[in-house]
Amino acid sequence: MHCHTCKSSKDDLIYESDYWIVLLHKSQGYIGRCMIDLKRHAESLSDLTKDEWEDFISLIKKLEAALKKSFMATTFNLTFMMNDAFQEKPYNPHVHWHLRARYDHDVEFEGITFKDPQFGKHYDRTYTQEISNKIRTKIIQKIKANI
Amino acid sequence: MHCHTCKSSKDDLIYESDYWIVLLHKSQGYIGRCMIDLKRHAESLSDLTKDEWEDFISLIKKLEAALKKSFMATTFNLTFMMNDAFQEKPYNPHVHWHLRARYDHDVEFEGITFKDPQFGKHYDRTYTQEISNKIRTKIIQKIKANI
Repeated sequence: MHCHTCKSSKDDLIYESDYWIVLLHKSQGYIGRCMIDLKRHAESLSDLTKDEWEDFISLIKKLEAALKKSFMATTFNLTFMMNDAFQEKPYNPHVHWHLRARYDHDVEFEGITFKDPQFGKHYDRTYTQEISNKIRTKIIQKIKANI
Repeated sequence: MHCHTCKSSKDDLIYESDYWIVLLHKSQGYIGRCMIDLKRHAESLSDLTKDEWEDFISLIKKLEAALKKSFMATTFNLTFMMNDAFQEKPYNPHVHWHLRARYDHDVEFEGITFKDPQFGKHYDRTYTQEISNKIRTKIIQKIKANI
């Protein structure tokens, strides 16, 4: 069965742990937004092993610290959703998380000003910031250097 | 410093573990929606202890099973947000999670039909279902009986 997550490009790889990979999200409205994909195909949180959870917890700690160091992130929204996988049967979800850093200040990076106009409120799914592939690469490099 | 979570009413208590309490959320658009509050005041995921995480993981497993048994939940959205706590300084967030069960079918409960018109998509924060306190109590009892 087709699984988008299993087949996703690893071009935007930020970090790899024993059980998870961290990719820069295509939308960088909230600079540093990333996805955390389980390496194996598992369908729900209840399916995760103790080792996978422990690795995840350690990874979140590393990522929070790296995003604070890279862009002075103020706080984080961490979400487990997987709704897209339920648009048609047979459902085939693959465990992954979204991590959005949130900012109470503008972030100047490589000549671009990244803002968080919804700070203090729920993220806006439509909010984004157009950036070149060169800038994407630089964001990845910056986070990598701080992990 | 005032903390809304520390002072929240425990009237809607569904379950209590060593480190967390589970409360029925005021909005029941997605039937069974609940909040999972850390008992002590801690400000971020990176502050959680190993024991608190382990207890949380075990709790999520219990809740997923209970919501499947109670209302045949199809999948779950689990979110860590805390945006409200960042609306004014000094920020004073208190670690808590939101768990929304999502449904690919209508749920008939105590004469009310609970629907999930956004199934397969991001939850709608404005979507709700007006219910009486009596029904709220029955939802709590049902989940409790299945934990």
